[in-house]
Amino acid sequence: MSDHALYRSLATDGGKIVLLVMDGLGGIPIQDGRTELELARTPHLDELARTGVTGLSTPVRPGIEPGSGPAHLALFGFDPVEHQIGRGVLEALGVDFPLGPRDLAARGNFATTDVAGVITDRRAGRISTAECERLTDRLQTATVASLSGCKVFVLPVRDYRFVLVMRGEGLGGDLTETDPGKEGLAPLPVTDRSSTAAGQRTADLVNRWLGVARAALHTETQANNLNLRGLSFDPGLPSLQDLYGLRSGGIAVYPMYRGVARLVGMEPVLFAGETPADQFRALAAVWDDFDFTFVHIKKTDSYGEDGNLAGKIAVIEEVDAALPALRQLDPDVLIVTGDHSTPVALRSHSWHPVPTILWAKTVRPDSSTRFGESACAAGSLGHVAATSLLPLALAHAGRLKRFGA
Amino acid sequence: MSDHALYRSLATDGGKIVLLVMDGLGGIPIQDGRTELELARTPHLDELARTGVTGLSTPVRPGIEPGSGPAHLALFGFDPVEHQIGRGVLEALGVDFPLGPRDLAARGNFATTDVAGVITDRRAGRISTAECERLTDRLQTATVASLSGCKVFVLPVRDYRFVLVMRGEGLGGDLTETDPGKEGLAPLPVTDRSSTAAGQRTADLVNRWLGVARAALHTETQANNLNLRGLSFDPGLPSLQDLYGLRSGGIAVYPMYRGVARLVGMEPVLFAGETPADQFRALAAVWDDFDFTFVHIKKTDSYGEDGNLAGKIAVIEEVDAALPALRQLDPDVLIVTGDHSTPVALRSHSWHPVPTILWAKTVRPDSSTRFGESACAAGSLGHVAATSLLPLALAHAGRLKRFGA
Repeated sequence: MSDHALYRSLATDGGKIVLLVMDGLGGIPIQDGRTELELARTPHLDELARTGVTGLSTPVRPGIEPGSGPAHLALFGFDPVEHQIGRGVLEALGVDFPLGPRDLAARGNFATTDVAGVITDRRAGRISTAECERLTDRLQTATVASLSGCKVFVLPVRDYRFVLVMRGEGLGGDLTETDPGKEGLAPLPVTDRSSTAAGQRTADLVNRWLGVARAALHTETQANNLNLRGLSFDPGLPSLQDLYGLRSGGIAVYPMYRGVARLVGMEPVLFAGETPADQFRALAAVWDDFDFTFVHIKKTDSYGEDGNLAGKIAVIEEVDAALPALRQLDPDVLIVTGDHSTPVALRSHSWHPVPTILWAKTVRPDSSTRFGESACAAGSLGHVAATSLLPLALAHAGRLKRFGA
Repeated sequence: MSDHALYRSLATDGGKIVLLVMDGLGGIPIQDGRTELELARTPHLDELARTGVTGLSTPVRPGIEPGSGPAHLALFGFDPVEHQIGRGVLEALGVDFPLGPRDLAARGNFATTDVAGVITDRRAGRISTAECERLTDRLQTATVASLSGCKVFVLPVRDYRFVLVMRGEGLGGDLTETDPGKEGLAPLPVTDRSSTAAGQRTADLVNRWLGVARAALHTETQANNLNLRGLSFDPGLPSLQDLYGLRSGGIAVYPMYRGVARLVGMEPVLFAGETPADQFRALAAVWDDFDFTFVHIKKTDSYGEDGNLAGKIAVIEEVDAALPALRQLDPDVLIVTGDHSTPVALRSHSWHPVPTILWAKTVRPDSSTRFGESACAAGSLGHVAATSLLPLALAHAGRLKRFGA
């Protein structure tokens, strides 16, 4: 029996759980030997650390720098190595596209090719988002009726990037990308690695779409061609409701995080504003509707990627200042963590384990008195896999029955 | 190769190991921020912590509240998720029944049904243990010859609860319970989920027994019916002798713990008295007979379940006071732990990891100077799975050969 199946078999009703994720929270020392989290003034988080337990969470595996998709799946209790989400699916979620269970999604890149059909610029001169919108509109119109029995959606993302979704009966397979990975080569046809009839048929459909789409771009000077990457399907995960009986909601400003949450059955909560205080107000408004709520703070990660120390500190302090409003809701369990580290010093996601607080009415507190990487490294939650956090939350909320007699 | 197989392949002769289990040892803060173990005065355990290493042990998986059966299997080195013990088997062990390898064991509940055969009370008005003894005697007499080629044993447990054991050639299968789980429904027939000939035959035998047994209860007013639950077989575990060459003995006051120990080949040690001092005296008496001895202290758990702080502290202090007698035996390795936590504050088993001391002549001591949850959280044994403790004991006793050249 897998651990996942074990937890599922023991799930029962219980208290309310809040998972507060500051994206890219973790750092490495950047000033006076302290990380951005340690430099921030966080009295409320420190109080939470003092009365809860702290530890360090490993998102995927030791040494693995995760993307946002796998990092969040782990926080939702799914092993992200076992359950991989394709890039196409993530891009579709990122533009708030309501992906269906057998929809094929692909990330598209506009590109420039020469008369011989060889790629001279894989990013089509980094065209503007306005250009992208003009061209995706054209592709939508030109290709919408190109595939019998199959709906087509072409959506702009940003700059030279777009999303293609195909919806129809019997799509499937394991499809290759068209992007040869460097300039000087022609785009590749899509092939199927699964050797199934559905895969072969789907590859044929995509290639047919590519022909029509490329013809529609023919008159362009910059974006006269395109590539498709990460052709993939919704991984078809069971919902947190099915697994643990959790009515769950996601409160995120950015679509992609609402989308990843929706993959595990979370209901996206719509709200006005975009500050942490706005998000906690939204949480209060839906407090009675959910057993489990996921609140996603994006800008810790964005400032980390920008190398903006003051910005990342300010967001952490903003969350801290708003925290009393969350605590007033009186959750039974509150986890504060990140999906991964994005150290300002590295300007990138990283593999460093993530500072984490587990606070609960039934917790056995440790001696930590501060929320920071050094304090968490000594906390009695220890070094845990991110996939253990949801089970621990369930336990502390009284939501797991006894195993065996 | 599984870890279990790895350890087994390296086992060799070596020193003597004692595993001292205080059932339900772990707690959460209950007074002045301290747990029951931290409130107890334990100079000898503290000395053991000072000269050994401490840590926290997770019985099954993070967040899992274990029953006593799985929690002990883990301490004996078996993954309790892989090797599950049925409730019927545990109940039979709990009344000291010498279960054989292919015996079918079931937990029985007397019940009340109305004229239509519908259950009106699943506990038969919680009849007394004396009543239970009268009725199990009657069932034993009435049903002993009811199944050709199959012996039947009906044993009282307590109140409305009893044990049924069937012994015969070729019993098997994966059998369902008769208890529909709530009043207002009739008991269910037993069916086999394994789709094997042995399973079908065993289900038929049990249903035939049920018919005879129910006829024998027909004249009763309260306990005029019964249900069978947790129909199960001894999991057939290899013995510690077979696995590691350990001659092993179990010193427990309560039958169930002697029984679980017997499942892994431990010899039950009989002795007079029931205090920790009595148990350590019994240990001294059999010291030369065993390589590995398991000493089980029950009342830490009982007082935890009762919410009796003074009681739990007193038992811990009693163990501490008796400890010098154990140490005088000069074991090479001594592990002090619990099978799980039973915090007085929660009055129940819990998932909190268990404070643990590993003392050995070959240990690398850490800086812990006290035996308590906070000290153990900082101990250099770290956070370990309970299944790692026996392998660590084997290593420290010189009982594991080098792996590879």
